[in-house]
Amino acid sequence: MIHTDICIVGAGPVGLFAVFEAGLLKMRCHLIDALPQIGGQLSEIYPQKPIYDIPGYPTVNAQELVDNLRKQIDPFHPTFTLGERVEKLERQEDKSFIVTTSDQTQIHCKVVVIAGGLGCFEPRKPAVERLEEFEGRGVAYMVKNPETFRDKNIVLAGGGDSALDWTIFLSDVAKKVTLVHRGETFRGAPDSAEKVFHLAQEGKINLILKSNVTKINGNGVLNEVTITGNDSSEFTMEADYLIPLFGLSPKLGPIADWGLNIEKSAIQVNTFDYSTNVEGIFAIGDINTYPGKLKLILCGFHEAALMCQSAFKYVYPDQKLSFKYTTVNGINEF
Amino acid sequence: MIHTDICIVGAGPVGLFAVFEAGLLKMRCHLIDALPQIGGQLSEIYPQKPIYDIPGYPTVNAQELVDNLRKQIDPFHPTFTLGERVEKLERQEDKSFIVTTSDQTQIHCKVVVIAGGLGCFEPRKPAVERLEEFEGRGVAYMVKNPETFRDKNIVLAGGGDSALDWTIFLSDVAKKVTLVHRGETFRGAPDSAEKVFHLAQEGKINLILKSNVTKINGNGVLNEVTITGNDSSEFTMEADYLIPLFGLSPKLGPIADWGLNIEKSAIQVNTFDYSTNVEGIFAIGDINTYPGKLKLILCGFHEAALMCQSAFKYVYPDQKLSFKYTTVNGINEF
Repeated sequence: MIHTDICIVGAGPVGLFAVFEAGLLKMRCHLIDALPQIGGQLSEIYPQKPIYDIPGYPTVNAQELVDNLRKQIDPFHPTFTLGERVEKLERQEDKSFIVTTSDQTQIHCKVVVIAGGLGCFEPRKPAVERLEEFEGRGVAYMVKNPETFRDKNIVLAGGGDSALDWTIFLSDVAKKVTLVHRGETFRGAPDSAEKVFHLAQEGKINLILKSNVTKINGNGVLNEVTITGNDSSEFTMEADYLIPLFGLSPKLGPIADWGLNIEKSAIQVNTFDYSTNVEGIFAIGDINTYPGKLKLILCGFHEAALMCQSAFKYVYPDQKLSFKYTTVNGINEF
Repeated sequence: MIHTDICIVGAGPVGLFAVFEAGLLKMRCHLIDALPQIGGQLSEIYPQKPIYDIPGYPTVNAQELVDNLRKQIDPFHPTFTLGERVEKLERQEDKSFIVTTSDQTQIHCKVVVIAGGLGCFEPRKPAVERLEEFEGRGVAYMVKNPETFRDKNIVLAGGGDSALDWTIFLSDVAKKVTLVHRGETFRGAPDSAEKVFHLAQEGKINLILKSNVTKINGNGVLNEVTITGNDSSEFTMEADYLIPLFGLSPKLGPIADWGLNIEKSAIQVNTFDYSTNVEGIFAIGDINTYPGKLKLILCGFHEAALMCQSAFKYVYPDQKLSFKYTTVNGINEF
């Protein structure tokens, strides 16, 4: 059992910064994230994209921001459980909580802070017969490690940026790349679309428009994909992998069952301390909602700061909080 | 007459960042500040101090933060009126405002955003006979340019960091430095206090403890200072300058008369858009108050973002606001 003051669910930028604000008030934090690394959407979805609206950064690369936040909280030595999903929350008699993850890791804490972003991301799944049967056996919803696909026969499906970007990238890696898209034009960046059309003209990829992958087949692992045209024509081709890229759909997951007031997949909070309707549970960042809410990282930072003022009362019920500026007092590592 | 969408009163970090958030929504800004430079307290009071609680910066020098904010807003070409104090606010028939400064500069705008920090800083003045008569004629409340004091006979009064730091600094510049302090020990940093005692032992400064400057005299300009001991002993010495350093006291100034709801020198606002009780006037940063308020720069950044969503309705009453992420759309200079 891990013991801490604050258990933070979600290790994205807002969850990370909450460690800093908690640390200033001498509260220890443990963070849990379903993703295998810290940084949330920034590290998982757009690590190399520039962000322009972090105050004081004319531009900052998403991963660079995560790295800087990590450095900023280092003096307070947060601990992490990564790659595990929060499942269960149990209130103890003394009002503290025990949080249990999908891998049965248990965290005992005085305060729970949900900084879960848009929730757990689940890939949007297309209507393909027997799709789930081949998950992990040839069907992959994201490209975690491109090397997996070296010299393989790959079919990608989708019409957005991910589909275009991975088609371009994998055309240099895989033995054969086929992109199947139900439309004639692409929703993704015009540059990328142009590049894909160019690769198809050069014969470096196989581009199948106005069509969908409708069936898959294989013996234990995937080896066949059936593609149906909008005109109902149908043909079957060999494939080692099918990568459907239709975006990620956020889900609240088990948190939805914790008795919190939920409004359109977001947790309702007060604006004076971002507390929820359940005593001792706070929600900050993209996962909460209140009048005027903007889903911006910089707003989550503010929410983290105000939240910690109230969290302090749970962690140190007998102590008076004295508010100090870092310019005057610096920070005190622990 | 200057015409703009938003007139921002106060060019500290929060006022500066408001330009960025306004710019994302295609609103132009003009900033007014009583100080001769942008940056507010950061540039005026602690430019060289490190700040530790700006999210994403493990540490940042106050002036460096100001410089980065300036770079961040450059694409939106804000305009400035510096070194002038806001005096008058007049509502026009079409609901727009005309703001007039102490130097009669006039700004016509659709929205007024008060980002005035702690207000205009005014030096705390000690009880010294005829003090105000000699202001600018030997009495100075801050050291703007140390060269003013080269080879002069200086009396400093105070017991805090400013008094200690300037005593140490000016001991190398002035002909003679006398520090008068009513106590025996100093409130400032122990290091600095030790250094001052050491300089006094070496005869490099004149340290007069348990005493106050009580009277000053001169013919047009200051040339005499009377010092009274706590034991009522009194003596008079020659001096070219008296520098009383008893801190700065923030004042709301003329803004206090604009019909805004004020609570303990702060402007009451709503938390959904940081609007005041006066339509079209918003208040962000240290100058506002609401339940849970923390006077942190990072909170002002959040307030600026939410404020701009409502300000948009005043600037573009007929347009629908479409919220876009900078990671997706970048920023569009204008």
